[in-house]
Amino acid sequence: MRSDKSPVMEGNGGAGAGATEWRISRASARGAPLADAGSMSIRAVLGRVFSSVDESGPRPMLMLGSGDPTGCACFRPPPEAEDAIVDALRSGEHNGYSPTVGVLSARRAIAEYLSRDLPYQLSPDDIYLTAGCCQAIDVMISVLAQPGSNILLPKPGFPLYESRTMFSNLEARHFNLIPDRGWEADLESVEALADENTVAMVIVNPSNPCGSVYSHDHLAKIAETARKLGIIIIADEVYDHLAFGNKPFIPMGIFADMVPVITVGSISKRWLVPGWRLGWIAMCDLNCILKEAKVDKSIESYINITNDPATFIQGAVPQIIANTKEDYFMKILNLLRNSADLCYSKIKEARGITCPHKPEGSMFVMAKLDLSCLDGIQDDLDFCCMLAKEESVIVLPGSALGMKDWIRITFAMDIPTLENALERITSFCQRHDKLEA
Amino acid sequence: MRSDKSPVMEGNGGAGAGATEWRISRASARGAPLADAGSMSIRAVLGRVFSSVDESGPRPMLMLGSGDPTGCACFRPPPEAEDAIVDALRSGEHNGYSPTVGVLSARRAIAEYLSRDLPYQLSPDDIYLTAGCCQAIDVMISVLAQPGSNILLPKPGFPLYESRTMFSNLEARHFNLIPDRGWEADLESVEALADENTVAMVIVNPSNPCGSVYSHDHLAKIAETARKLGIIIIADEVYDHLAFGNKPFIPMGIFADMVPVITVGSISKRWLVPGWRLGWIAMCDLNCILKEAKVDKSIESYINITNDPATFIQGAVPQIIANTKEDYFMKILNLLRNSADLCYSKIKEARGITCPHKPEGSMFVMAKLDLSCLDGIQDDLDFCCMLAKEESVIVLPGSALGMKDWIRITFAMDIPTLENALERITSFCQRHDKLEA
Repeated sequence: MRSDKSPVMEGNGGAGAGATEWRISRASARGAPLADAGSMSIRAVLGRVFSSVDESGPRPMLMLGSGDPTGCACFRPPPEAEDAIVDALRSGEHNGYSPTVGVLSARRAIAEYLSRDLPYQLSPDDIYLTAGCCQAIDVMISVLAQPGSNILLPKPGFPLYESRTMFSNLEARHFNLIPDRGWEADLESVEALADENTVAMVIVNPSNPCGSVYSHDHLAKIAETARKLGIIIIADEVYDHLAFGNKPFIPMGIFADMVPVITVGSISKRWLVPGWRLGWIAMCDLNCILKEAKVDKSIESYINITNDPATFIQGAVPQIIANTKEDYFMKILNLLRNSADLCYSKIKEARGITCPHKPEGSMFVMAKLDLSCLDGIQDDLDFCCMLAKEESVIVLPGSALGMKDWIRITFAMDIPTLENALERITSFCQRHDKLEA
Repeated sequence: MRSDKSPVMEGNGGAGAGATEWRISRASARGAPLADAGSMSIRAVLGRVFSSVDESGPRPMLMLGSGDPTGCACFRPPPEAEDAIVDALRSGEHNGYSPTVGVLSARRAIAEYLSRDLPYQLSPDDIYLTAGCCQAIDVMISVLAQPGSNILLPKPGFPLYESRTMFSNLEARHFNLIPDRGWEADLESVEALADENTVAMVIVNPSNPCGSVYSHDHLAKIAETARKLGIIIIADEVYDHLAFGNKPFIPMGIFADMVPVITVGSISKRWLVPGWRLGWIAMCDLNCILKEAKVDKSIESYINITNDPATFIQGAVPQIIANTKEDYFMKILNLLRNSADLCYSKIKEARGITCPHKPEGSMFVMAKLDLSCLDGIQDDLDFCCMLAKEESVIVLPGSALGMKDWIRITFAMDIPTLENALERITSFCQRHDKLEA
């Protein structure tokens, strides 16, 4: 058909475009659910906070908003990991497309790496390589998104789960994590929320954003609950082994004899290389429930039409895992422990902010705003934007995580910078203290 | 709710799983559109052909099925590109997350690179970095997929467009490329197919799978048709500059004064690094039609919830582009020209296969099977599987590209290997020649 019929739409095309009515203009006017899904991302919310920073201010901007400490010299990846990348690149053997499920040697190395902490051995066939843990989440939500199904997500949680469930039309239902119980999952509300269309629940341990690490006992209770409900567990362990408190990191996969567990993870956090974009999905499926439900086939189908991690980065994985020394991990854990301790004690001193649980893992702590003490601050977004404007300090508004009037603070930073940032936060709170005002 | 009500489903869970009825088993029984979308990928189809290869056969398997020549020593990337990656990695400045739209220096370098062949200057803000051209396609299809809209795709085409439109519930309508007219688009059928819900048409130039390169005249006609219909053009130029015949490569973007053009591309093909996963979307939007329709915002929203290319690979882009010498590109073009000539002349000799158009670009040629000459071969898939079994040679069945009883042959290969493969194809055809039989 021809379009030389329509009245000209104003402003729609300049000289060269003539009188064309562009279909795309009408299509977009129908509105995009995309925009809603995308606007929920941490990057999008931080972008809004960031735009409040006074660029002409005298002090450097301090970023306590994201899980990316790579800007600090003390959080460099181990040189062995860099060497492994260079070797894989220089070999010339990893310039081509990778197999759909990932390079075999990398899948084998990850299977062995994860199996060190499991009472059974994963096989390379249980592992799918993804472009970071984010793509692992994308894959799992897309695979589980069947019409009518729902999934149980923790609150507070990681916003990508919200975005992807919204984008995939998978219904999300939220169970609470309880601050006064070390951010343990409220399993009674899990049972109340689940119905026959619930396919999975998501557990993030060590927790982003809470900084908590779950005990063996709590993980066992989660597994029992999931089995009782007949739902699988997506165990987001992207912060695996970043546990520096009293409780060790225990993978959910140890309960795979009881409940099917799909673990998602990556080298991003432990090796401090979030920009390398290398993650995985591990099927801990001892009773072949996932295989019988053809979840493995669905994962393969989906990753067939998505992009892979760079092949030479995949090719470097065996050496990255084999060559990184225990000393490196210990050093990073010590840094995180010290900065978490500092963060917790300083926040406790600030008026108008309380921190119900001392962080034991990951890179974050959740803090509650007491707006009744803070003058002229409407809510968490307002707090963050004013803090950005007045103090050039960025923290994440809790509403991005489903926790209105909370904030998430990243403590993964060198001590002097963190100290500086926390002093600015304290002085901000003091300045806005209703009693002082 | 509890699940201790249901009759036990047989085979559903072993000892540890007890009598649990797993919800996932029922969810998957509802069927996954995913499986259909994924099964159409080139990797999935080649996997089926590949499984026919006799692994105990005496001869090495020869792969003429994919657009990935990196297995041949003569198709190594330029050393300058490898050096650029190593430098970006060793700098320690690119280990963190990248901005949503990509690292600025890389976007600037790509804007300048593309602008060399345009009558105007693209800005870094017109460029979005993606994990290879595949993700660029994913992004554009997801952004354009509004309820009720449709998109016009070439036939034969690149299957990822089919998979992603199917996955996104965007209706695909197919216009023919005409073999006897150098695989030009049948613009009459484009006009017949388009209606008021058509948002875009896709043009792949240089063509995968046809090996054709479009003239200025034909590109102008495409642009005029799109303008008349009020639809935008997605110009897939992943094989940009790989034109070794009489016609130079001309980017669709030169017509952006007439019609909004969204160019998708990558360094994968020209630099022979498909595994590095670095591509782009370039908005050639001189009259701001895309901006007014908020296509840029939709792209940003979507890439906010998808994964990025590895940051240090982004960081290497300026040096990759600046340092690769013209000699390198000339050498690769000469290799491709020689192998295309060899392929075309050898296929012409084979009975039962005809090649309507000598390849002038990309890495492929389409050849038509004359099944009336070939004994005991049902269709193109049958041809490819038998060829794999009897000769250990892999070519892609045309039905994967919408062209039943055609095959796509990759000629990007060193001459001795290609010669060997073509001799095997010729001898296969001779053995199955009805007259000989």
